[in-house]
Amino acid sequence: MSYRAPVKDMLFAMKELANIDAIAQLPGFEDAGYDTAQAVLEECAKLNEDVVAPLNWEGDINPSHFSDGKVHATPGFKAAFDQYTQGGWQGLHHPADVGGQGLPKLIHAACQEMVNAANLSFALCPLLTDGAIEALLTAGSDEQKATFIPKMIDGTWTGTMNLTEPQAGSDLAAVRTRAEPQPDGSYRIFGTKIFITWGEHDMAENIVHLVLARVVGAPEGVKGISLFICPKFLVNADGSLGPRNDVHCVSIEHKMGIKASPTAVLQFGDNGGAVGYLVGQENRGLEYMFVMMNAARFGVGVQGLAVSDRAYQRAVAYARDRVQSRPVDGSVPGAAAIIHHPDVRRMLLTMRATAEGCRAMSLVAAAAYDAAHHHPDAAVRQQNQAFYEFMVPLVKGYSTETSLEVTSLGVQVHGGMGFIEETGAAQHYRDAKILTIYEGTTAIQANDLIGRKTARDGGQTAKAIAAQIAATEEALAARPSADAKAFARRLAAARADFLAVVDFVAGQTKASPNAVFAGSVNYLMLAGNLMAGWQMGRALMAAEDRLAAGDDVAFMQAKIATARFYADHLLTRTAGLRESIVDGHAGVTAMALEAF
Amino acid sequence: MSYRAPVKDMLFAMKELANIDAIAQLPGFEDAGYDTAQAVLEECAKLNEDVVAPLNWEGDINPSHFSDGKVHATPGFKAAFDQYTQGGWQGLHHPADVGGQGLPKLIHAACQEMVNAANLSFALCPLLTDGAIEALLTAGSDEQKATFIPKMIDGTWTGTMNLTEPQAGSDLAAVRTRAEPQPDGSYRIFGTKIFITWGEHDMAENIVHLVLARVVGAPEGVKGISLFICPKFLVNADGSLGPRNDVHCVSIEHKMGIKASPTAVLQFGDNGGAVGYLVGQENRGLEYMFVMMNAARFGVGVQGLAVSDRAYQRAVAYARDRVQSRPVDGSVPGAAAIIHHPDVRRMLLTMRATAEGCRAMSLVAAAAYDAAHHHPDAAVRQQNQAFYEFMVPLVKGYSTETSLEVTSLGVQVHGGMGFIEETGAAQHYRDAKILTIYEGTTAIQANDLIGRKTARDGGQTAKAIAAQIAATEEALAARPSADAKAFARRLAAARADFLAVVDFVAGQTKASPNAVFAGSVNYLMLAGNLMAGWQMGRALMAAEDRLAAGDDVAFMQAKIATARFYADHLLTRTAGLRESIVDGHAGVTAMALEAF
Repeated sequence: MSYRAPVKDMLFAMKELANIDAIAQLPGFEDAGYDTAQAVLEECAKLNEDVVAPLNWEGDINPSHFSDGKVHATPGFKAAFDQYTQGGWQGLHHPADVGGQGLPKLIHAACQEMVNAANLSFALCPLLTDGAIEALLTAGSDEQKATFIPKMIDGTWTGTMNLTEPQAGSDLAAVRTRAEPQPDGSYRIFGTKIFITWGEHDMAENIVHLVLARVVGAPEGVKGISLFICPKFLVNADGSLGPRNDVHCVSIEHKMGIKASPTAVLQFGDNGGAVGYLVGQENRGLEYMFVMMNAARFGVGVQGLAVSDRAYQRAVAYARDRVQSRPVDGSVPGAAAIIHHPDVRRMLLTMRATAEGCRAMSLVAAAAYDAAHHHPDAAVRQQNQAFYEFMVPLVKGYSTETSLEVTSLGVQVHGGMGFIEETGAAQHYRDAKILTIYEGTTAIQANDLIGRKTARDGGQTAKAIAAQIAATEEALAARPSADAKAFARRLAAARADFLAVVDFVAGQTKASPNAVFAGSVNYLMLAGNLMAGWQMGRALMAAEDRLAAGDDVAFMQAKIATARFYADHLLTRTAGLRESIVDGHAGVTAMALEAF
Repeated sequence: MSYRAPVKDMLFAMKELANIDAIAQLPGFEDAGYDTAQAVLEECAKLNEDVVAPLNWEGDINPSHFSDGKVHATPGFKAAFDQYTQGGWQGLHHPADVGGQGLPKLIHAACQEMVNAANLSFALCPLLTDGAIEALLTAGSDEQKATFIPKMIDGTWTGTMNLTEPQAGSDLAAVRTRAEPQPDGSYRIFGTKIFITWGEHDMAENIVHLVLARVVGAPEGVKGISLFICPKFLVNADGSLGPRNDVHCVSIEHKMGIKASPTAVLQFGDNGGAVGYLVGQENRGLEYMFVMMNAARFGVGVQGLAVSDRAYQRAVAYARDRVQSRPVDGSVPGAAAIIHHPDVRRMLLTMRATAEGCRAMSLVAAAAYDAAHHHPDAAVRQQNQAFYEFMVPLVKGYSTETSLEVTSLGVQVHGGMGFIEETGAAQHYRDAKILTIYEGTTAIQANDLIGRKTARDGGQTAKAIAAQIAATEEALAARPSADAKAFARRLAAARADFLAVVDFVAGQTKASPNAVFAGSVNYLMLAGNLMAGWQMGRALMAAEDRLAAGDDVAFMQAKIATARFYADHLLTRTAGLRESIVDGHAGVTAMALEAF
């Protein structure tokens, strides 16, 4: 089952929802309008459809493997990676002065969806390299930037993020990897890092590890963590490769999914110390890492909607093909393709509406990021930054949690064949499960949503967004169509649920932390659902307008039906979540720990 | 992580909810009271904890494998199977006159949970053998019963159900396997059956295949299907094994989960025809198969709650052990075991409440089955039969759909370790996904719920159950405790949602089949949630009473907290489902098939 990048859907969302025309007005993005986006997306689609997607199943049956200290990538991956980087895709949104193309995050997000839908395992290598680039752009010296970034952009080298240790997963305060200052200004790094994605491989000549470690004598906890560059091969002054550094892969994990992506255990300093170079200032490592993590979290959210769309496409193809039973309405005299059955359509629409809603949410967030970084007006920048930061845990948490439901439905549509690995649906189900875990579990995203994004400003950002949603409701309600009116009603109910929860969170986090945090993930799910649903409501209006103009009738009708489905089947979930959040902690707190 | 059978929880539900004392009053069950149940469950727990559970992971890494036409079971499985059958567990609930122990389904259901929680793959062999025994008990001749059943009960032979063909999955009307009558009264069977669980293996000396086939000249569709016994080895008059029959395994599937359970493709009649013996009358095969399928569907529901409980136990153990981050309420000065974190407790309680609710629902249904078959009063039998039949699609559908959420949470509690296969949480996640598919997908269960169980009697059975639930609400509301009052309120809301949906289904199925069937699975999820929740409300009252009597304080407090959690976090989901069902078909029907 081949992958078809949803270029038309992406362009619709970019134009109608994320307002790419406004992005193209921002300084530095003058050439990044709709036509550019269309050309870039079409090119990107070709590469991912023809080259990257066909390797997805191959990566599952022939995963990365480890022998003699080396990791061998799935056959075909290196050639595809070379095409990817030589095509300029690694540098798409990075600044031109380090070798990138300087395009908006809005366009990058769409391209990022494609490579992830094509092949999650493959896409992780560019994703982590992006993270390393972001970290160096944020805090690296000019020399560090010049030395490392262009080679990561052109694919000669790749990057990694080294955070986790056996005792330090969600809790980075527990990081123990140690950095000893050397007379020459460098450091020696000692310690063990685990779960390092693409931490060792043979697709590039060098790997630039970005490593969290504690300088000897640094304070305890998160305020004593620094960030280091620790390349696999040291780099000579002329940029050529020097000696092998003392960082070695000792094993890779045997995982349920994303099997082609090697997950390495890296040992630093077993032979005298790995040479590391401080990035920025000592003890500010976590702060830099957060910049990079926000980018990576957004990227993982995109992975969620990407695998959802891929699972959807596969399920539709099967549902059109598989003939089984007569439709309940008698519309076909004998057995029909199962897409005729209402429950199959319900499953497919759940998948489709989820993917579309999450895509719209992520693209609107990406556009806010672009405005936050490029708008000439500081107040507008600040406003967009607040919006973007509010959205990051939702893009990450909601798009990935829903990808579990979507990929499960993808298997379900296939019936018994879905459970057979060769069908391919099961791989999406297995792959997706990591997305709610890495780059911060859903609970970690929810803590961020509650703490930094809601309680800290007393719910102001949340309420400002709710006010925008109310405006969308009014516009929907003023329309003559039954679909728009129904959507307005559902959206209003969901917004009321959201506001009740925001008040609860803003009011109670200090006084009753257990009660609030017992509802943290439910709050994230409610908020993510509402934000995606809001965009679906805007999409409904745009589609109605273009339909009235006679524009692409079937496409616009499908947009309207999908939006209506979102309202009736997904937005309706917020009522129950609200109850669980504001009045659902009694059982949680009453249960004695030893009684579990 | 070892398995501990929840004997105490089971006995609580059997006594307080399923009323085992009343079952022990029924003719034939005089010795099957609480004390017997306790003795049987404790014995069963030992076997499954010590022998069957330790083979679960082994089966995943060393699955059944096929070579030269033979299937080799996972090492250790045969010895465990011998212990299982020699212990009398295969015949627990089958009649004494065919070698069983004649115990109630109520006790069997609890034992069935244990073997499935211990090892889903292993448990499938007895489960399918049970199905074959049921079919023969229903429609077999005395000679067939005498020849085949005792040997299936003592484990010398096993049984299978051969329904599916490549073109006939959910749609059994499409069965093409052909049976040619022979002069001696036997038949020759020709065709291909797929997805045959334990269809070939080396754990028993013979395999009794029960096969759906179409006698030459039979009517088209479901009314032309007959049921045949087609043993792997023919059986001589003295019961000894005769020649090899012409049914052969040509391959087994490469599956996402339950890997130790061989899923066979069986070829019948490639060398002249497989000898088959008609069971009952020609063309009534589907009717007989439905008896057996109802038993198997109930059994698969039990598999769902079993894997949920196993995943829960594993997650609790990890959450107690894994230290990470400081609790948000500052109750521990430093990093604490993650069970201290409210979101982890929410996840664990979601898992626990789901497993307990589904267990209670299944045990109450099993007791109704016992009363339906053993009560001296025909009206009581009929009433219990209607209740049981209403519950079967809910036990199957709800307990398995929720097992997907529960096993996913099980992985999530483990964080990154959950994605590593050796941890074991991922196996439950992979295994569980088949449960919503085999023995009728959730949609097939939902069709049954709508068609035969709701629309056919105009919603009378559903409303009679709702009336019983209303009585529970009143009893809850009359109690002084906040927990009981809160539960009464949630239960009343969920029951109102259920009744609105029942009216919609009963009133609209004929006139608007697409609208009703677009909500079929949501109706099943709503009804299952309510039925399990109802039992949790009854459990809450029983626990309060026993707590007041000073009985097992910590246990009863945990029961109350779990019930309260169920009310606030799970019962609250019905409101959204109701909306989607009664007012959610616009998008489904508006979406053009070619637009997907």
